[in-house]
Amino acid sequence: MDALKLDAANYKDLLKHYIETQDEQSLYGAEQISKAFIKNNIPPEEIVNLHLQALAKLYPDLPAHIQHSLDFLLETMISYGLAHKEYQTLREQQL
Amino acid sequence: MDALKLDAANYKDLLKHYIETQDEQSLYGAEQISKAFIKNNIPPEEIVNLHLQALAKLYPDLPAHIQHSLDFLLETMISYGLAHKEYQTLREQQL
Repeated sequence: MDALKLDAANYKDLLKHYIETQDEQSLYGAEQISKAFIKNNIPPEEIVNLHLQALAKLYPDLPAHIQHSLDFLLETMISYGLAHKEYQTLREQQL
Repeated sequence: MDALKLDAANYKDLLKHYIETQDEQSLYGAEQISKAFIKNNIPPEEIVNLHLQALAKLYPDLPAHIQHSLDFLLETMISYGLAHKEYQTLREQQL
């Protein structure tokens, strides 16, 4: 299993744990996963996609309006992804 | 009404329209709003927060697990927000 698939599985497990307990430990795990994603050049919209997939697995009867709402949120994140990519390019130029 | 409040109201209206119709026009609107947010230094986690507030207004009986799941997603976006802030600093240094 590659690193991204492992992180995706971790994400779902942590999300499930957080939904059930709302504990700080899960939020710390979320922070660690997102840092790993950034390190691996995963754009923020990909996290929203991963989130939607995790929710659909955890709740097979997820209402259509929630799914559509996350597609919309994903779209808003694409601009942030592009801005972040530009940041990485600038950073590489400075190194 | 300030620009951010106006964008927040727009976001909710566009989201509602997209959920009802899934049309491309709403997605284009989402892109425009997110570009305005980036221009105004609004971090990505703030969009997730805005999204949660909009959903809660559109669906007053939004299940607790959906709300908790968005709190979790918000946490993952904070790292992206920090990375983006660093990008802005680099950019300012280059200008």
